[in-house]
Amino acid sequence: MSQSVEVCIIGAGVSGLKAAQHLIKNSKYSAEDIVILEAQDRIGGRLYTDRTSSKLGYSYDLGASWFHDCLTNVLFQHFYSGEDNDVFDISKDGYFDDKPECMFEKDLTGPVSEAKTKVGTIIHDIEKFIELYFLEHLSLEEDKSVKEMVDLYLLKYSKLLTEEEIKYAKVAMRYVELWHGVSWDKLSARYSILQHQGRNLFNAKGYDVIIDWLLKDIPRERILLESPVSKINRHVSNSDKRISVETKNGTVIHCNYLVVSVPLSILSLESSSDYGITWEPPLPETMTAALQKIHFGGLGKVVFEFDSIWWDMNQDRFSMIPKLTQSNEIFEELTSLPEPWSYPATAINYSAVRSKQDGTAAKGGSLVILTQSPLSNYLEKHPHEAWTYFKPMLSKIAVKEMPNEPITTITTEWSSNPYIRGAYGTIFTGDDPVNASIQLSGQVPGAGISSSTIRFAGEHTATEGEGCVNGAWMSGEREANWIMEHAGKSLKPLL
Amino acid sequence: MSQSVEVCIIGAGVSGLKAAQHLIKNSKYSAEDIVILEAQDRIGGRLYTDRTSSKLGYSYDLGASWFHDCLTNVLFQHFYSGEDNDVFDISKDGYFDDKPECMFEKDLTGPVSEAKTKVGTIIHDIEKFIELYFLEHLSLEEDKSVKEMVDLYLLKYSKLLTEEEIKYAKVAMRYVELWHGVSWDKLSARYSILQHQGRNLFNAKGYDVIIDWLLKDIPRERILLESPVSKINRHVSNSDKRISVETKNGTVIHCNYLVVSVPLSILSLESSSDYGITWEPPLPETMTAALQKIHFGGLGKVVFEFDSIWWDMNQDRFSMIPKLTQSNEIFEELTSLPEPWSYPATAINYSAVRSKQDGTAAKGGSLVILTQSPLSNYLEKHPHEAWTYFKPMLSKIAVKEMPNEPITTITTEWSSNPYIRGAYGTIFTGDDPVNASIQLSGQVPGAGISSSTIRFAGEHTATEGEGCVNGAWMSGEREANWIMEHAGKSLKPLL
Repeated sequence: MSQSVEVCIIGAGVSGLKAAQHLIKNSKYSAEDIVILEAQDRIGGRLYTDRTSSKLGYSYDLGASWFHDCLTNVLFQHFYSGEDNDVFDISKDGYFDDKPECMFEKDLTGPVSEAKTKVGTIIHDIEKFIELYFLEHLSLEEDKSVKEMVDLYLLKYSKLLTEEEIKYAKVAMRYVELWHGVSWDKLSARYSILQHQGRNLFNAKGYDVIIDWLLKDIPRERILLESPVSKINRHVSNSDKRISVETKNGTVIHCNYLVVSVPLSILSLESSSDYGITWEPPLPETMTAALQKIHFGGLGKVVFEFDSIWWDMNQDRFSMIPKLTQSNEIFEELTSLPEPWSYPATAINYSAVRSKQDGTAAKGGSLVILTQSPLSNYLEKHPHEAWTYFKPMLSKIAVKEMPNEPITTITTEWSSNPYIRGAYGTIFTGDDPVNASIQLSGQVPGAGISSSTIRFAGEHTATEGEGCVNGAWMSGEREANWIMEHAGKSLKPLL
Repeated sequence: MSQSVEVCIIGAGVSGLKAAQHLIKNSKYSAEDIVILEAQDRIGGRLYTDRTSSKLGYSYDLGASWFHDCLTNVLFQHFYSGEDNDVFDISKDGYFDDKPECMFEKDLTGPVSEAKTKVGTIIHDIEKFIELYFLEHLSLEEDKSVKEMVDLYLLKYSKLLTEEEIKYAKVAMRYVELWHGVSWDKLSARYSILQHQGRNLFNAKGYDVIIDWLLKDIPRERILLESPVSKINRHVSNSDKRISVETKNGTVIHCNYLVVSVPLSILSLESSSDYGITWEPPLPETMTAALQKIHFGGLGKVVFEFDSIWWDMNQDRFSMIPKLTQSNEIFEELTSLPEPWSYPATAINYSAVRSKQDGTAAKGGSLVILTQSPLSNYLEKHPHEAWTYFKPMLSKIAVKEMPNEPITTITTEWSSNPYIRGAYGTIFTGDDPVNASIQLSGQVPGAGISSSTIRFAGEHTATEGEGCVNGAWMSGEREANWIMEHAGKSLKPLL
């Protein structure tokens, strides 16, 4: 099959759909001028609301679940303004799960006392130490992992701390693993400290409502499912269209504009890989080099449902402080289930998140646990071992008798999904995310293939809201706007 | 009396003494080449350790008491390196009073629950809101007071908050008053949000040890006490020295270099004022204008000693959240004692601060309470009313029976001291502290009177550690270094 359109969009996630919807609503192009190629058999990309697995009638976002940085989040601000309340009503569909975290550790029965351990104060001090360190060591060559920087801090400042404070200071910074989706021994300290722009609102309604909202303007037949792209011909000469895109199943799309919104993990694959894209001519070396200096994090989730609520419903989040591991080995992959408490974890009191929706208490309750690579990858492959791993950790939060087994276990599958291969962009020690975003965002003249009509969108191309729904959203809008600005103008000869 | 020296230093506080000590130790000048004029009858300026008023054998720093921003604080780092441990031994002479604050308010018996009120989360959100606001409103004309910015935040975001959260959100930001020394209705929001560079260490030994340390290198007779300066002749022609300085009591100092380390509050006075300095010729208008765009905060302290400890010794700080005041009137001065809970206050568990020193519990204990202008000014004038004001507030923290009266009350006198007139530089709405520091720090070519051999030192001239001992210290060293670099060089004709 072959089609000729003005705009082809690769990827039916939030950025690709937003690009399409924005063009359909605001440009001279109609839906017929656009086609979206989606590798998977479903729409939504890394937004995925599971509405069928729950035994309690809950839905679970297995992909993104928060509106992050609400003070600057365009989606949050849109709905907060009161517009499109039927799509998402901030006052009832969202929940700020930001009560002080309740911390637990292996050797302690009750919660960890902030006053005794000063965990929060010391984390804050380590973060400032890291910030100051990299103000003095500007060269990217001098990056260190978060783990190395904690060691450096303690080497210098442990004399100021009590033995108990040191015990926690040694591991407490690992909380960043659950933001970046990767263990601290791989994570770049230089880029690990997040500057939040406001609070984070848990989307309790499900992020599929945003996908459905975008789909209102996109005729379903403009999206071709199960159409993974195998090849992009950047400069076609024997056609009236400049670009052609070939899928694995033989479809060819001819187009003048192309928006590539595949995940970074796909972009970074060798073209020889089964799921990689062959570029003809190949991407400029500046781009392929930049893509090697950015990685993909493996944030995963494990959902446990129970027929009763046996934890404190007045808490939002239970943080598990990991035990100190002696080994300095960096695990690329886990070949067997690690001991409980090997990794930090955050268990979200999902029953509290949903309490506005389910006013009159549901029969049971559930916890949503965040995990990081390489643990995510292991648990996603071995979901039946998840309870074995977490049961001793979760037993700490019990205020009533804890059931022997959950009634439901749901595990994400992002890392084993060949079209996703993880969660979102993350920064390994020595990476250069700034250059990657320069090469991909198309905002800097001369960088990437910015003079071309081939555009990139997705969370990994965002310069604001990186890794988040709002960043992906804005990147789709950005590229739609670029096309609208350039469409019809005579384009420079293609390079 | 008249003296001729190479360097005259006005002010025997930490910056003036540091300048003198640095010159004596490192330059070609000896102590005989230097004279220090001090207006008061004591050395130390705004470092003042009261070692006589306590009935419990305690000392109290009525001026500065912390090593702030320890990760970058030069004094902290010096002592932490192990040098001069006999002067100050970080491991036993300091105390990090940074356990989570215990908050109280008028209408509640126990401490305020963070989980219920989200005070910390919402303060953080308001601070980010303020930061983002001023990123969008760069013009200094668009400054607002902290109070106005809280109103603006609540106007926009109160819909997201519960009624109880709003109640606290309305007043919780007033905590900044105790950093800046002035009430929130006067305080510039643009400059109110502090970026700390590490933890703050309470100096439990007393800051006079730093003064005494500097004095080891400065012969006592080089410091003329009770010698307030009335006039500075910038360009003397009929002498071999370039500058002459006249004191109220008739002393004249002829010198080639002058370091002016008087407080900002003195610099800002009209020369016609009783305590002002007449400059001949007058200071350039750029300087006098800059001095009008910076103010002086009135941080004060009230110390209460008791014959027993009736509060929780496991806490470091008790924060008093003020009641909401209906009036929008900005009080320049209080003419009668306000109702308790009109202003936020922080009570420091001084017995905890001193616990390393006094191992085997003292018989009693004490609290050190921080206050802000205009309350400081009132209480400093009416010390006998301090207990009336604070008693109902402090009753909240009682875990044992609270005595009817303290056995000792000590109140600072900074605001009524005509040579000090407050505490340290602070920023009123619409002020421009950057320009003031440019004009005074002598670091920017063309600004201030930087081509002159008249230099300025003190916390208000610091570009790092503003308002702090380490900032004052570094400013003294900076000016000593400037003199060492320029001494002997032929100077440009004076302007």
